[in-house]
Amino acid sequence: MAKRKPKVMRPKALPPRGFRDYFGEDVLERAAMLDKITGVYHAYGFDPLETSAVETVEALGKFLPDVDRPNEGVFAWQDEDANWMALRYDLTAPLARVYAQFRNDLPTPYRRYAVGPVWRNEKAGPGRFRQFYQCDADTVGTPTVAADAEICMMLSDALEAAGIARKDYVVRVNNRKVLNGVMEVAGVLDMSDLSKFEAERGIVLRAIDKLDRLGADGVRALLGAGRKDESGDFTGGANLSDEQADVIMSFIDARRSSGGETCLRLRELVKGSDVGLDGVQELETIAELSEAGGYGSERLLIDPSVVRGLGYYTGPVYEAELTFDILDEKGRKRQFGSVAGGGRYDDLVKRFTGQAVPATGVSIGVDRLRAALAAKGKTASIAKGPVIITVMDRDRMADYQEMVAELRNAGVRAEVYLGNPKNFGNQLKYADARNAPVAVIEGGDEHANGVVQIKDLALGKALAANITTNEEWKAQPAQMEIGRSELVAEVRKMIARAT
Amino acid sequence: MAKRKPKVMRPKALPPRGFRDYFGEDVLERAAMLDKITGVYHAYGFDPLETSAVETVEALGKFLPDVDRPNEGVFAWQDEDANWMALRYDLTAPLARVYAQFRNDLPTPYRRYAVGPVWRNEKAGPGRFRQFYQCDADTVGTPTVAADAEICMMLSDALEAAGIARKDYVVRVNNRKVLNGVMEVAGVLDMSDLSKFEAERGIVLRAIDKLDRLGADGVRALLGAGRKDESGDFTGGANLSDEQADVIMSFIDARRSSGGETCLRLRELVKGSDVGLDGVQELETIAELSEAGGYGSERLLIDPSVVRGLGYYTGPVYEAELTFDILDEKGRKRQFGSVAGGGRYDDLVKRFTGQAVPATGVSIGVDRLRAALAAKGKTASIAKGPVIITVMDRDRMADYQEMVAELRNAGVRAEVYLGNPKNFGNQLKYADARNAPVAVIEGGDEHANGVVQIKDLALGKALAANITTNEEWKAQPAQMEIGRSELVAEVRKMIARAT
Repeated sequence: MAKRKPKVMRPKALPPRGFRDYFGEDVLERAAMLDKITGVYHAYGFDPLETSAVETVEALGKFLPDVDRPNEGVFAWQDEDANWMALRYDLTAPLARVYAQFRNDLPTPYRRYAVGPVWRNEKAGPGRFRQFYQCDADTVGTPTVAADAEICMMLSDALEAAGIARKDYVVRVNNRKVLNGVMEVAGVLDMSDLSKFEAERGIVLRAIDKLDRLGADGVRALLGAGRKDESGDFTGGANLSDEQADVIMSFIDARRSSGGETCLRLRELVKGSDVGLDGVQELETIAELSEAGGYGSERLLIDPSVVRGLGYYTGPVYEAELTFDILDEKGRKRQFGSVAGGGRYDDLVKRFTGQAVPATGVSIGVDRLRAALAAKGKTASIAKGPVIITVMDRDRMADYQEMVAELRNAGVRAEVYLGNPKNFGNQLKYADARNAPVAVIEGGDEHANGVVQIKDLALGKALAANITTNEEWKAQPAQMEIGRSELVAEVRKMIARAT
Repeated sequence: MAKRKPKVMRPKALPPRGFRDYFGEDVLERAAMLDKITGVYHAYGFDPLETSAVETVEALGKFLPDVDRPNEGVFAWQDEDANWMALRYDLTAPLARVYAQFRNDLPTPYRRYAVGPVWRNEKAGPGRFRQFYQCDADTVGTPTVAADAEICMMLSDALEAAGIARKDYVVRVNNRKVLNGVMEVAGVLDMSDLSKFEAERGIVLRAIDKLDRLGADGVRALLGAGRKDESGDFTGGANLSDEQADVIMSFIDARRSSGGETCLRLRELVKGSDVGLDGVQELETIAELSEAGGYGSERLLIDPSVVRGLGYYTGPVYEAELTFDILDEKGRKRQFGSVAGGGRYDDLVKRFTGQAVPATGVSIGVDRLRAALAAKGKTASIAKGPVIITVMDRDRMADYQEMVAELRNAGVRAEVYLGNPKNFGNQLKYADARNAPVAVIEGGDEHANGVVQIKDLALGKALAANITTNEEWKAQPAQMEIGRSELVAEVRKMIARAT
C-alpha cells in the first residue's frame, strides 16, 4: 500500500460554549455607556476598585446569588500547590475579601464602584452566557439607611446618564424587615427561633419574586398547596392557611399612590412586629431623603412587591425596572423588566473577620441595559469608519503615507489601503465594508498635476440607489478633484457634510 | 468535660498568590492612559475587539511567547463535559482563533486593537504577577511591509500620547530575515533543510536577546563554548567557530548613524543570501515610509541588535525602548528598557485553517509603561476627592441631601458623610483620608441664619504645618461663612483656588 499523509488534526476555531466575542462598535458603545455610569458613581464620591479575576475558592465561599440551584457554580481549578482557585462569579464577594483585607487602610464608610466581567459555570444556552459584565456600586461600613437612599438615587441618575429617559424606568424600593414583619404577623416567622418555618419563608420569598410571571393567582397557589404549571409540572407550596396567605397577599398589594401612603398601609400590616415597624421607618426615611434630593415617586417608588430572591439581604432591597414595552421573540408586547438590583447585606465580611460589617449596594446588568438602549434606538453610532487612502500606484506608498499622516495629525481617522491594490474595485468594497466616509484617490496623472480625487462614499451610496447607467454614475457629484494642498480641509468638509 | 464551642475556620482575606487589586487613582490613571493609546490605534483605522477571557485549550495551543521554559503555562480546567478550557495567556492567540472563525465576515486586511488582562500560570514573585494587562494592535491578512511600518509609527504616536516625551523613547526595528541571512552566511542555516542547526540558532537568538544584560563579551561566549555566570552556573553555547561568531557579532554591531547607512552595512553582511537581501529591502522600505510619515530616526531606528526571543516571528520585529535612566532597587542608574514589542508572524492562523495568513502586531506592557510614567512624574493626579457635606445634626439628613444634590447637579463631585456623625473630628479625618478639597458644615445655628461654613481643606493642611496654637488654628482663614444660596458658587471658587 502507498503511504498516506497522516490527517492533520486542526483545532476548532470556536470559543468554548457560552462564551462570545465583541467587535468594533459593540466594544465602543459599551465602554461609552459604562463611562457615563461610572461618571455618576464617581460624582457621588465612589472610588473605583479593580480586583483580580481569580480568587481562592475559600475566599469566594458559597454565596452564588440569584440562583436556587446549588449545583451551579464557579469555574475552579487547583494550582501547583494544590490550592483551589476560581474565577469570580460576581463583584460583591471580591469586595468582601478586599474590605476584610484592607479594612484598616480604607476610609469608613468605603464607597467603591467596580466594572468587569464575571464568570458562571452554568449551562450555556441562547442568550445565556458564562461570561458577562457587571457594574456595581457598594457602600461598606455604615448601617445608616441614608446609604441605601443614596444608592437608589445614584442608580436613577446612572440610568438617565446611560440614556434611559425619565418615566421609562422606575427604581422600586422595599425592605426585607417589612417582609419579615409581615411574616411574623402571618405566623411564619418566630423571632426567638429563626430556624422555624425557614423552608416556608423560602417558598414565600420565591413566590413573591415570581409575581410578574405568575400573577396574583399563581403566587396565591404557591403560598397554599402548590401550583401546577402549563406543562403539568407541580411546584410544592408553603401550605399556609388562607388567613396567613391573605396577610402575605395584602402585603404584595400594599402599594398606594405615594410613598407616604404606602408606608401608612404597611404600618397597618406589620402592627405588633418590631422588626416590621423598624423596616417601615427605614422606608419612610428613604422616601424623605430621596424627595429632598429631588427624586420623586415617578423615579423612586416604595413598592412592597419587590423582594429580590437572594437570601442574604437584610434590609432595604431595590430594583430598577424599565417600564416601556418591547416585543419578545414571538412578537408579543411585554415590559422590558429589571436591569439592576441590590440591597443591604450585613454578613458578607463577617465570614472573614467574625465581625458584622453593614453594607449596601447595587449591580447593573450591563448586557441587559445595552439591549434596552438598543431597543429604544439609543445606541447612536459612535464609531466612524476611517478615511481610506486608496493605492493607485504601489511604488508611491511613501506619498500615501504622507497624506495619511497629514490627516491623522489633523485629527481625522484615516488609513492607507493595505490589501492587494491590483483591483481598484476591491479597494472601494473594502472602504464600504469599513463604513468609510471618504476615499482619497491619487493616480500618476493626479500626482503630476498636484491634485487628488476625493470621493464622498456616503453620498455615493445614497445616489447609487437612484442611478441606473454607467454614464450617470460618472457624472454624479460625489467625487471631486481638489488641490493636493487642500486635502485636509476638503476631507474635513466632506465628512462634516456626511454627518 | 465541659462542651467547647467548635473553633470557627475563617477563610483568609487574601487573593491567590501572584494576584493583586487596584484601587482608586490607579484604576483611573491606567484607564486614562489606555484611552489615549487606544485613541491613537483608533485614529489609525484599527477597530476594537474584545474576546472572551476563556478559550479552549486546543484553540490556545502551545504558543506561550517570551518564555523558554516549557513547564510554565496556562490556568486550565475541565468543564462538565470534560473539555479542557483555559484563561488566555496573551491577546494574539485569541485573535488567531477569531480571525479563523470570522475570516469571511472581517475586512481584509483586518486591523484590530485589544486591551485586557491575560493570565500566566507562572511562579509568582516580587513584581511578577499572574494577571496583567496587555494592549495590542495587529494587522491581519496582508503581507506588505507597509503594515509593519504603520504599526511602528503608531507605536511611536501611542507612546507620545501616553505621555512619553520624544527623545525619551525609540522604536527599534529589525528583521528576522536579515538575521536568517546572517545565519546563512555564517553557516548555521541551510535553507534547504531548516531542521539543521536549529538548536544552534535558538542559542544564537537567545544570546543576542541578552546583549543588554551580558554585554558583547557575554554574547560572544554564548556563541562559542558557553558562559559561566557570576553565581558559577554554566550556560551551554552554540559552539560556533570564531569565524562564524565574528559574522554574528558584526551583525549585532551593524548599526550606523542613519537607517540608510545601517541598511548598506547589512547588505554587505548578508551578501549571497536571498532571504537576507529580501529582509534588508524590507527594512529600507520601513525606513522610507516612516521618513515620509515624519518619523525620523530619532523616533524609529533600524537596529540589528533587536531580535525578540519569541520563535514565531517571521519578518520585521520591533521594540519600543525608553531611553531615560531610572534608579534600580539598589539605587544604581540604569535604562528603563523595553515597554512594547512585536513583529510579523505568518503562521498563527494556519493552525486552524491550513492556510498561512500574514499578520503583524505589537503588544504594549501596560504595567511597565505605567511604571515608566510614574518614574517620570507623569501620572498627574486625575482623581479629585469629593466635597464632604458633614453631618452636624443627624435629624437633618434631608437638608444635607439637598445640598449634595445641588453640588452634583452643578458637576461637583460631592458626598454626605455617612459614617457615625457623633465625633466631628472623625468627619474631618475622613475628609482628609478622602483627599477632599472642601468640607461643608451646617449646624443648627447656621441653619437658622441661612448660612453654611465652608472649609478649604487643602489650604487648611498647608497652614496646619505652620500653626502651633489652638487660637491660631481658629483664626486661620481656611474656613468661611457664606449664604446658603451661595453654596455652589463658593464651593466652586474654593476648589478652583485649590488646583
